[in-house]
Amino acid sequence: MSDPVAVDAMGGDHGPAETVGGAVMASREHGVPVVLVGRAGEVRRHLARHDALGEIDVVHAQEVVPMDEPGAAATEAASSLRIGCELVGRGDASAFVSSGSTGAVVACAVRGIGRAPGVLRPALAVALPSVTGGATVLIDAGATADPVPEMVAQFAVLGTSYARLVLGVPDPSVGLLSIGSEPGKGNRVTRGAGELLAGLPLRFHGNVEGHDVLAGTVDVIVTDGFTGNVVLKNVEGTVRATLTLVAEGGIATPEALREVARRYDPETHGGAALLGLRGTVVVAHGASGAATIARACVVAHALADGGVTGLPEDRPAAEPVR
Amino acid sequence: MSDPVAVDAMGGDHGPAETVGGAVMASREHGVPVVLVGRAGEVRRHLARHDALGEIDVVHAQEVVPMDEPGAAATEAASSLRIGCELVGRGDASAFVSSGSTGAVVACAVRGIGRAPGVLRPALAVALPSVTGGATVLIDAGATADPVPEMVAQFAVLGTSYARLVLGVPDPSVGLLSIGSEPGKGNRVTRGAGELLAGLPLRFHGNVEGHDVLAGTVDVIVTDGFTGNVVLKNVEGTVRATLTLVAEGGIATPEALREVARRYDPETHGGAALLGLRGTVVVAHGASGAATIARACVVAHALADGGVTGLPEDRPAAEPVR
Repeated sequence: MSDPVAVDAMGGDHGPAETVGGAVMASREHGVPVVLVGRAGEVRRHLARHDALGEIDVVHAQEVVPMDEPGAAATEAASSLRIGCELVGRGDASAFVSSGSTGAVVACAVRGIGRAPGVLRPALAVALPSVTGGATVLIDAGATADPVPEMVAQFAVLGTSYARLVLGVPDPSVGLLSIGSEPGKGNRVTRGAGELLAGLPLRFHGNVEGHDVLAGTVDVIVTDGFTGNVVLKNVEGTVRATLTLVAEGGIATPEALREVARRYDPETHGGAALLGLRGTVVVAHGASGAATIARACVVAHALADGGVTGLPEDRPAAEPVR
Repeated sequence: MSDPVAVDAMGGDHGPAETVGGAVMASREHGVPVVLVGRAGEVRRHLARHDALGEIDVVHAQEVVPMDEPGAAATEAASSLRIGCELVGRGDASAFVSSGSTGAVVACAVRGIGRAPGVLRPALAVALPSVTGGATVLIDAGATADPVPEMVAQFAVLGTSYARLVLGVPDPSVGLLSIGSEPGKGNRVTRGAGELLAGLPLRFHGNVEGHDVLAGTVDVIVTDGFTGNVVLKNVEGTVRATLTLVAEGGIATPEALREVARRYDPETHGGAALLGLRGTVVVAHGASGAATIARACVVAHALADGGVTGLPEDRPAAEPVR
């Protein structure tokens, strides 16, 4: 049996009430081996409710990182985040799943797991459904807010590996998110990244724009973690606003629109993968319920098996930082 | 009679075929005095089609700036963009309207009209309809891709004046677009801007996120011109994608969804106002038809009357650049 997926029992808006149920579901329904990390007494009480006391191991962690804790501060205490990441770092778990604060997860993962060889900074990857029926991987969706161009170029390499595994596209195309389709349009970071991407062994499509995010124009859209996070949340908000307007206009009932809403609900993304580390980390939405946590465990398990977290060994890394 | 609005006859995807009709419409239907700038012979042929030859003046400009021309290069030739801006700079026109390339309009406007006193960089303001029925001004939607925090703080001041006039809100609230609602979350530029905004005499709401853009959370959302332009185009693309999915799902017919689509069609924004100059400039979408050009003329005329282009005289400017 493969190493278990470590699940942060204390993360998210609902804590063990949802995370423990998610871990049980991942184990029973999907056959994913799991271990829960958090306050042992509390976690065991929730396991007992699912009749799963002898079934799933618990690793004790006394501290809980609040959802609004800044990233760096989270690494100090012996929290479920820190201890979960250390399990992966030591090789005692194959992957870590948390619905905690993204910034805190990133900080703990970098410290407890470490960056993969050659990787400058980690990046969050999210697969967004396209209007054409496929999906586009958005990377970085919020791990590194101020990257230099060399980091953005690496994100493209990481996103390509991720798209190959998650979308099943053999040779994914990559677009650089910018403010004009012509090369050289953008801000300083984008222009620098564009020059580097043109020289990398990946299928670089050139610049794409904000309206390409859901259009299925490319398989991977690469950007800095600030723009990527704003865009991810803007997609969620804009889909919601549009459906509200449609429903209010009497054009359709809210019930009929639920399927479209579900498609862009952050709950259904199955989590964002934190790439570029020596191990696998999946960040689920803070509001995740048990089913979403279970899905995140399945994704984490598959990613750990596929080994897509670092730079591919047969491909050169991006240029080193000057 | 007030000074005319100068209209770039050669701009946009359709050139004089639509711009001349728009100018005629602005003059006849809305009583806005206009002057057309472009290749005189060609413009007059189009005026003749509208029986408007003696009705609207034409200022000759031999050159046409292509839609994909980089900003700086556009200022070299004696183009309709450059000459139109110079008319405003000399006080011979009250405002300039163009559906040309945003980068080229910004470059020509800065050179031909000049910045308003104390303004570091210009910013584009767009009013986006909110799901609550009002609208939110997004600034900067694409004029200054790499601002320093002091510039972003000024954009907030410019956006507040604009929202007061265009939305009719006496004391507009301002949100700083970032990747977390807590102060201090964001990239370097955003964190710096947040500190400055807290000290300015405006109604600063704090950080907002990508999902707040259409939610009516604040009256003004301020950001850098790179993020703002990506968000503006992402809103357009996401509304379109959502309506397509609704229509394909058989939930409603495309016809029934047209009203919602129209609301977020860039054609109907009435253009983006370029703020921070000594005169008024409105940039209409490249695909603008005659009606959109006419509406942009009406907006430009009102903005010139309201004098919202610079920093308010009774309010201090943001801190000077270090």
